[in-house]
Amino acid sequence: MIILKLGGSIITKKEAKEPTIDYENLNRIAREIASSSIDKLIIVHGAGSFGHIYAKEYEIGAEIQDEEDFKQKKMGFSITQSWVKKLNTIVCDSLRENGVLTVSIQPSSFIITKNKRIHHCNLDLINKYLDMGFVPVIYGDVVPDLDESIKICVLSGDQIIKYLGENLKPERVILGSDVDGIYNKNPKKHEDAKLMKIVTSCDDLATEGSLNVDVTGGMKGKLMELIELAEIGVESEILNAGRNGLIKKALNHEKGIGTIVKKEKEV
Amino acid sequence: MIILKLGGSIITKKEAKEPTIDYENLNRIAREIASSSIDKLIIVHGAGSFGHIYAKEYEIGAEIQDEEDFKQKKMGFSITQSWVKKLNTIVCDSLRENGVLTVSIQPSSFIITKNKRIHHCNLDLINKYLDMGFVPVIYGDVVPDLDESIKICVLSGDQIIKYLGENLKPERVILGSDVDGIYNKNPKKHEDAKLMKIVTSCDDLATEGSLNVDVTGGMKGKLMELIELAEIGVESEILNAGRNGLIKKALNHEKGIGTIVKKEKEV
Repeated sequence: MIILKLGGSIITKKEAKEPTIDYENLNRIAREIASSSIDKLIIVHGAGSFGHIYAKEYEIGAEIQDEEDFKQKKMGFSITQSWVKKLNTIVCDSLRENGVLTVSIQPSSFIITKNKRIHHCNLDLINKYLDMGFVPVIYGDVVPDLDESIKICVLSGDQIIKYLGENLKPERVILGSDVDGIYNKNPKKHEDAKLMKIVTSCDDLATEGSLNVDVTGGMKGKLMELIELAEIGVESEILNAGRNGLIKKALNHEKGIGTIVKKEKEV
Repeated sequence: MIILKLGGSIITKKEAKEPTIDYENLNRIAREIASSSIDKLIIVHGAGSFGHIYAKEYEIGAEIQDEEDFKQKKMGFSITQSWVKKLNTIVCDSLRENGVLTVSIQPSSFIITKNKRIHHCNLDLINKYLDMGFVPVIYGDVVPDLDESIKICVLSGDQIIKYLGENLKPERVILGSDVDGIYNKNPKKHEDAKLMKIVTSCDDLATEGSLNVDVTGGMKGKLMELIELAEIGVESEILNAGRNGLIKKALNHEKGIGTIVKKEKEV
């Protein structure tokens, strides 16, 4: 089984001022997935411009100041939940129309966090869908949090990847990003930045992360989750899903297309 | 706490050949809910033309004949899930735009049935949302089933009502339907049909149910669930949500607008 992340910066126009799909990328990637040889697959997608705008505007996950502030944040929760659900519907439909048997999984229907980390999440249904031959499509969402000072928070697709990776032990995790992989420096600022073939710890690099607004932490946050996964033996690879054919190659078990995140430096 | 059902025949044009919203009813009802004095509320809505067409076409819940048939049914599951989710998004958005703090709850993310009855359904999140002041909006959906001969089935809004009623013990259940209540005979066929003020058992009537296609059993199915609820002490009332103001009256604790379903005949 493979877990594939489709970054919000790939399937949406992340810098758009309102939720905007990148249909060209989405439909191409849907065709790549449909024509790959992968048997069992879970897809996790980010929120991009469908989520970050609202999560940021309403400061979801920040400490609640008073009743009025909580009321505003709840409104933000409701709005964000609706938009990321719309994105998920579009993603599932595109995949299905290209031949992928998708089933949508809504985190805010069954996941509770504690201090912004997944606290309760029953995977029985996802396993059931996988056994039946469906491709579960789960996504970055807003969820209730047990911490009384915040009560609600943003659950990133990257944290979901980490949780599923830990609990379902996939063959590998593939992260479809908008960059070729992890660089030793930010390639948008430094001309001599080098793409790393393998990363084993955060010390390997001094990345300043994505240049876009990303409430869930940008590249550094993603990498931290992946390094923790690597430590328990789940290897992942970050590649550029914006480049034609790379997702398909990776699903067809090709390795070393982007940056591999693994425990030890030996290949 | 009140559980309010919005029938698929009210919020959608049920006889339409493709999924069609009844925006006039939906937006009016959203305003009625927003302007009522209700404190804690759960909304359950049916699928109407967003669900029944596909569930019927793909015979979801019928015995699986062979692999090819299962493949078709799974495709039907994916399509149906997507359409009822779209309906839920529209319903939540209309409610929120009118001032109701909705949170969407997707049954196919956390409910499993066995022989078409709810087998596993964790209500912790719904309770959490209620405690925070949200209005959870759940709906008729398709779900996995533990019975190997069917594997998937339709979960009706009415069965959800029954389950929530049993487990959350609401003050009352209100069913917003497209008829004034329960008649002793089908009023569309019999001129002398009389509206019943109180129903305590199926023997009270000889209803032939709704005239529309309804894979989840029409009025008789609804009534059976309500009578079972009545038997454990949860009273319900079926009223015409197509008539201006009745939902608001019922949410404001007025009784006897339509037909009350309760355990004993005394009022």
